[in-house]
Amino acid sequence: MKFEALINIMPHKALLDPQGKAVTGSMQNIGLPQITNVRIGKRITLEIEAVDEAEANEMVETACKKLLANLIMESYDYSVVVAK
Amino acid sequence: MKFEALINIMPHKALLDPQGKAVTGSMQNIGLPQITNVRIGKRITLEIEAVDEAEANEMVETACKKLLANLIMESYDYSVVVAK
Repeated sequence: MKFEALINIMPHKALLDPQGKAVTGSMQNIGLPQITNVRIGKRITLEIEAVDEAEANEMVETACKKLLANLIMESYDYSVVVAK
Repeated sequence: MKFEALINIMPHKALLDPQGKAVTGSMQNIGLPQITNVRIGKRITLEIEAVDEAEANEMVETACKKLLANLIMESYDYSVVVAK
């Protein structure tokens, strides 16, 4: 069966996010000072061929831990759905 | 009122995503050839001070169009929730 995973990888809350800080500053310049605390992470989508959802979840977990997320600096969450 | 926006910015489906292609290749190397079609975009969270949800939505829309997304290459979607 084919599944689709939607993965969010964000910098840890406790860490500075220089890219987000820069964008927060830029919000002033485009007239949106009401927007603050911008944090920028990664959004990853992928397709998985697996027998069931449990196996698909396991594969996504492995991919996040081994390759996609840097657990020292980032945390991740994901959802797996049956691909249309 | 304080709102929180969760924004996803992804490369258009029709476009090549070289970063995603590279990661798809790497999946083979970590023993997950079942994972294909990796696409990598941005996940952005931010806080907004607005009188109601409609105004917050409008600000996020403006921020995406003017600053966060490159509409030639990327599409975006977002949700706005009341901040805890």
